[in-house]
Amino acid sequence: MQKIKEYVEANQQRFLEELFDLLRFPSVSADPKYAADVRNAAEYVAQKLRDAGGNNVEIYPTAGHPIVYGEKIIDASKPTVLVYGHYDVQPPDPLELWETPPFEPTVRDGKIFARGACDDKGQFYMHIKAFELMQATGTLACNVKFMIEGEEEVGSDNLGTFVKANKERLAADVVLISDTAMISLDTPSLETGLRGLSYVEVEVTGPNRDLHSGVYGGAVANPITILTKLIASLHDENNRITIPGFYDDVAELSDAERKALNEAPFNEDEYKQDLGVKALWGEKGYTTIERTGIRPTLEVNGIWGGYIGKGAKTVLPSKASAKISMRLVPNQDSDTITALFTKHFERIAPDYVSVKVTPHHGGQPAVTPTDSVAYRAAEQAIEEAFGKKPIPTRGGGSIPIVSLFENELGLKTVLMGFGLDSDNLHSPNEKYDIANYFKGIETIPLFHKYFAELS
Amino acid sequence: MQKIKEYVEANQQRFLEELFDLLRFPSVSADPKYAADVRNAAEYVAQKLRDAGGNNVEIYPTAGHPIVYGEKIIDASKPTVLVYGHYDVQPPDPLELWETPPFEPTVRDGKIFARGACDDKGQFYMHIKAFELMQATGTLACNVKFMIEGEEEVGSDNLGTFVKANKERLAADVVLISDTAMISLDTPSLETGLRGLSYVEVEVTGPNRDLHSGVYGGAVANPITILTKLIASLHDENNRITIPGFYDDVAELSDAERKALNEAPFNEDEYKQDLGVKALWGEKGYTTIERTGIRPTLEVNGIWGGYIGKGAKTVLPSKASAKISMRLVPNQDSDTITALFTKHFERIAPDYVSVKVTPHHGGQPAVTPTDSVAYRAAEQAIEEAFGKKPIPTRGGGSIPIVSLFENELGLKTVLMGFGLDSDNLHSPNEKYDIANYFKGIETIPLFHKYFAELS
Repeated sequence: MQKIKEYVEANQQRFLEELFDLLRFPSVSADPKYAADVRNAAEYVAQKLRDAGGNNVEIYPTAGHPIVYGEKIIDASKPTVLVYGHYDVQPPDPLELWETPPFEPTVRDGKIFARGACDDKGQFYMHIKAFELMQATGTLACNVKFMIEGEEEVGSDNLGTFVKANKERLAADVVLISDTAMISLDTPSLETGLRGLSYVEVEVTGPNRDLHSGVYGGAVANPITILTKLIASLHDENNRITIPGFYDDVAELSDAERKALNEAPFNEDEYKQDLGVKALWGEKGYTTIERTGIRPTLEVNGIWGGYIGKGAKTVLPSKASAKISMRLVPNQDSDTITALFTKHFERIAPDYVSVKVTPHHGGQPAVTPTDSVAYRAAEQAIEEAFGKKPIPTRGGGSIPIVSLFENELGLKTVLMGFGLDSDNLHSPNEKYDIANYFKGIETIPLFHKYFAELS
Repeated sequence: MQKIKEYVEANQQRFLEELFDLLRFPSVSADPKYAADVRNAAEYVAQKLRDAGGNNVEIYPTAGHPIVYGEKIIDASKPTVLVYGHYDVQPPDPLELWETPPFEPTVRDGKIFARGACDDKGQFYMHIKAFELMQATGTLACNVKFMIEGEEEVGSDNLGTFVKANKERLAADVVLISDTAMISLDTPSLETGLRGLSYVEVEVTGPNRDLHSGVYGGAVANPITILTKLIASLHDENNRITIPGFYDDVAELSDAERKALNEAPFNEDEYKQDLGVKALWGEKGYTTIERTGIRPTLEVNGIWGGYIGKGAKTVLPSKASAKISMRLVPNQDSDTITALFTKHFERIAPDYVSVKVTPHHGGQPAVTPTDSVAYRAAEQAIEEAFGKKPIPTRGGGSIPIVSLFENELGLKTVLMGFGLDSDNLHSPNEKYDIANYFKGIETIPLFHKYFAELS
């Protein structure tokens, strides 16, 4: 541990500067206009993997954005850790709410502000630096493989093809991912479950053209009005989702499991104060921890229709649209839920409009084991680095590839995340605490050490 | 009539080219970035008024866009016609739906396609050309005054100040406006009533920043979801507006009046086919003609919130907004309705969000008399020009200044419009039939003639 701390200490400035360089690439995978930036980010990651001592480093093209792969096989008899991460980021909109530009990393109060600072550039880059550290200090205890993709924020559409075509290359004993949050540096935690996702876009069409709302209003269905009625009907008065069959496959936790889950520190007043809301909202009968961890949800991520510029325009638009995503829990199936949503939405659309449902992407929910060698290695690594045993938690986000790795590679995943819920992921002013970044780089070599010892 | 026809015939090409020049100014009053274009359009109108023989032509500045005034007083003992029109236009969005650019007038199938072609450049410019015709042919029968403003599409905010300050200058016997539609060239009609308007913008705020919908979704109220619930609740199952007191001042028509109104030609199948809808929508118990003419309505003109770019973003946004306008009928009052809406919307907002209602602009509903000298002059002019007596109709749109003229100048208005409901006002591909443009220029001198004779 002393050697690790000394190496991090001696290289702090460079570790930060390299991450800043990576954060300067606007590698937004959702928007085709950033395609060259995404590519440049991949090149940077590949180069840094090579610099750290990686072998067979290559950028694998896909039908979408490329995947960076690299490895270091020290001894075939040692266990192998497959590190997964993603160098793509969410769109930075709305830009006007950023205090400093999203692709000009800026440090304030010991935090790095930039799109991707935590999700996931800051987190996967810790693994490259930890790998450099283990190489430099001669402490590499496991074989290590890196697979850093560029399409996580748009559903990892092409990762499955790559994984299926490269099963041998990716053979390992565990998948290690840092793309989740812990409670705090004082209360370290390990996520043991992730929700799945079903993301759709809906479009409601009324008249075949935009109309004057004075001439036609009141006589022709307004697609915005109808869209609001359709969306409003998706939650009932208890904020339960009304899609028939939606909850059929939801695994209900036992009373003991729910009790354990609710023992994680949570202060509702602080939570409300941090968010600036007077009251919380959610499915009746469940706590906030349960609503964000073990219950499925339906959220509208975007809505648009008609005139949205300055001033007033008296238009009755032809179309209105929304982006809607559902977070899924075990044992819901992403494809089944997308189909249930589509069927329901088409069924409830009245005959004076037509609706179109387009699936965007999905992912299966996943639960990771807490009794495995890898989980125990992560527990010990965190305990040694933080001085406290981590609490197991259930995360609200989705990393759809966890079930892909299980199905295609037969590998379980350890979610050793160092972010915080307050890191503004997917929001303006995304940040990552410098302390968490360095703490992560210290903890990862310990995972490798204990994973080798316990295996 | 022969002389009129000959003059129009001889000058058709020039009449079209001058209108095209006027249509090329993107005089969008709602958006500050077009301010110079609005000003340039005013200059053009003033110059054309002077060229046609107008005296005292001036561009009067206001706190917003300027008003063009000009006049021709031939004999103080003759009646005076005050022509009102507006040279500003609606925003052209959504641009991608225009077949040809909105500010490059293009003729297809005998129709002029351009923003403002019908509303109102093509229509008010007929009066300038008819004035030129009467001057050139020595047939001017009335004094004439022109007041062409630049803020009709944003609520005529500064017209009231101008009218109040210029009562003597604007003294007249009738206001003549071409800014409405007739049924068709085969079935000419005259509008005898216009709806008022109350236009508001609403903003719903949930959390104080955009959130990750996986981390916070299901536990914090999503302002889009709440906005859809609020808007959805504004119409009940009979499509009646649920704002308490909203219908209190609505003047109900007698059975005889409703019967007369419904005698106007209307083919529901053609109407649906034209709009491309399978079914109509509207307040239960009323026909389409009634829904768009004598009943108040509430329409959502725009809605936005969250991520509306390409692809998927899993955001739970901080805010969601909508533009909502209500069309009012006698004897509803615009300010009262705006206040009722605001109170209701604030009352129904749940405590996990905050709402803000911002009034945009409004206008009072108006009914014009059908037993006046001016109405009979319009009837005779149309009968002579079209060979058919016009049908009185009630228009769905709003020209808030009709009640302003009545209150401030003591003047009744004649709404002699030559547009068609299918002219795509406020929509992409706005058009005006060339035949209607020329027919209007022929009809207007007849109005002046009969108004002088009958007065």
